[in-house]
Amino acid sequence: MTAIEIVAEPGVPQVLVTREFAAPASKLLRAHTDPDLLARWLGPEGLQLTVDVLEPRDGGRWRYTQTDAKGERFSFFGLYHGTPSTQGIVQTYEFDRQPGRVYLNAISFEERGERTVLRQNTVFQSVEDRDYYVRGGMEVGLRASLDRLDALVTGRQ
Amino acid sequence: MTAIEIVAEPGVPQVLVTREFAAPASKLLRAHTDPDLLARWLGPEGLQLTVDVLEPRDGGRWRYTQTDAKGERFSFFGLYHGTPSTQGIVQTYEFDRQPGRVYLNAISFEERGERTVLRQNTVFQSVEDRDYYVRGGMEVGLRASLDRLDALVTGRQ
Repeated sequence: MTAIEIVAEPGVPQVLVTREFAAPASKLLRAHTDPDLLARWLGPEGLQLTVDVLEPRDGGRWRYTQTDAKGERFSFFGLYHGTPSTQGIVQTYEFDRQPGRVYLNAISFEERGERTVLRQNTVFQSVEDRDYYVRGGMEVGLRASLDRLDALVTGRQ
Repeated sequence: MTAIEIVAEPGVPQVLVTREFAAPASKLLRAHTDPDLLARWLGPEGLQLTVDVLEPRDGGRWRYTQTDAKGERFSFFGLYHGTPSTQGIVQTYEFDRQPGRVYLNAISFEERGERTVLRQNTVFQSVEDRDYYVRGGMEVGLRASLDRLDALVTGRQ
């Protein structure tokens, strides 16, 4: 199992995530930009993910909804700044329960031989916004998501 | 002359700007979303501003170019996340000399009687990106820009 590294420094409105995958960047990109693939790995355990919109191009929109066991729905949405590529993905993020609390998410892919290091750099408008995101089960959700992504891109799922 | 407050804390990839204007939020919004008005106040002294694209709506694009006395051109561009309103403006930013260094800029307007407090909250992917922005004459440029914006919205220009 590859280790995930999560850095959320006190007083800094940012979260940095690093994880290595035994797969090329092209597979990781596809897992982020194909709605059927995305629905198979993204989100915390026990929530159903529906990809409502996914336009992986400069200025395109994205939106997905997580539904819990009680049928409660949580939607996230935003825009792609630049076209997602094997270099990376830059997108704005907003959670419908936190209107106006927009954050910027940048994912980069760095190939090292047969493997790829994925880095996710999320910056928030305030430390409070970052802490809200962290408290919302971020770490558990990220670990589970990226483990499922690993299974997907390495052909184990 | 109203004071401008600029906060750029060490180790935090963020710049916070606050300034009060003797004008309603609607005038400040118009000065940000009407290309002819924007060209009259934005940018450092001595640079000519051309607004190439300005689509002030959710998912719309914006792009402007500054031209210096030698004819050298500097372009900035991005997207509007959410529709600009008298509540505020959220937009992504990229400088063509720093490709891939995207940042998120959120402007809010808070009316206090006849006056409006403008707050600008800019978050960067790294402290290095923030420092590059600060070193690029940010403070001088901001002071001059917001003084010109003040003259414009209070009818002195």
